[in-house]
Amino acid sequence: MRVLVPFAADDPKTRLADALAPDERADFARTMLADVLRAIEASGRDPEVLATAPLSVEAPVTVDERPLTPAVNGALTETDGPVAVVMADLALATPAALERLFEPDADVVLAPGRGGGTNALVARDPSFRVDYHGVSFRDHLAAAAAVGAETAVVDSHRLATDVDERADLAEVLLHGEGEAVAWLREAGFALSADGGRVEVVRE
Amino acid sequence: MRVLVPFAADDPKTRLADALAPDERADFARTMLADVLRAIEASGRDPEVLATAPLSVEAPVTVDERPLTPAVNGALTETDGPVAVVMADLALATPAALERLFEPDADVVLAPGRGGGTNALVARDPSFRVDYHGVSFRDHLAAAAAVGAETAVVDSHRLATDVDERADLAEVLLHGEGEAVAWLREAGFALSADGGRVEVVRE
Repeated sequence: MRVLVPFAADDPKTRLADALAPDERADFARTMLADVLRAIEASGRDPEVLATAPLSVEAPVTVDERPLTPAVNGALTETDGPVAVVMADLALATPAALERLFEPDADVVLAPGRGGGTNALVARDPSFRVDYHGVSFRDHLAAAAAVGAETAVVDSHRLATDVDERADLAEVLLHGEGEAVAWLREAGFALSADGGRVEVVRE
Repeated sequence: MRVLVPFAADDPKTRLADALAPDERADFARTMLADVLRAIEASGRDPEVLATAPLSVEAPVTVDERPLTPAVNGALTETDGPVAVVMADLALATPAALERLFEPDADVVLAPGRGGGTNALVARDPSFRVDYHGVSFRDHLAAAAAVGAETAVVDSHRLATDVDERADLAEVLLHGEGEAVAWLREAGFALSADGGRVEVVRE
């Protein structure tokens, strides 16, 4: 199975602008990418990065300047056999969580992200195509049904947590097991438990 | 196994005040409670409600006016054998997700909530006590270790999603399978996919 990790190399993680400076966002995004690649490797697969620009990481990189949806669909079209697509900002991903994605013997396997996205998927049906715009989880369920593909859904907090916003940093501090949590701690982030849900503070 | 569902009967869900009027919050909270009770029943267990005041639901109700932590610890103290505690606002809970909580043969099983809480747990070690204040997931891990209890953690988006804030309503609309999602639709809530994560709008 090919395991693709799309990565937008230019100005990543803009919605973390209230927590991190631009160069920090780029560095943190690369750190999360490295964590995701390591977790995939530890699950016994060989990840490939699908990047909008060349970058140096410990995995093969394919450069495709197109936006996410056409770039992934290009890879789906050119590949014989199953393809997995795992987002680069799943800083909580572990080999065990990824195994629950890779394991089901369904034509399409979807791991929903919080807020309606699709954080990871496996496509074994050659006619399945992605559309990451909008409520993609719901749309991918419909797209799978439209091509007659049997679908499995992975119920995982780790895979549901893409790190896009300040509140997501708390999840990394709580559950992260890789370099991203170390990066955040080094940058001064800590949990603050004053209100209802835990928040992050920076010292 | 006793399966307790704590329920604060007075002024519930205050952090949904920007989305729902006070009487709506009370009604919605009761609807989520009923969904949780049904999901537990469908998993083959008999839920009991641990409420701060009498209420009429389709399950036995024990009234304990104390706050959550002492009320749950009172139940843990008085019970011989395993006790599960499942929060009443887990509107995404399904029998399958709950089975992953009940199934592990560990002394303590924890299902973390988004933001550091503990949305569901099973205590088989008679000396384990809860403390829901602050970052309770982290504290419960430490408390289990302190009494030498072997711990299992359930990685579930459904169990991680307690419905406290407006953004959580989107998860109910996306993944709910019970009465709570019907309640929200009837109240005019729908998904809006303009920005990054999906949000809810009310018409």
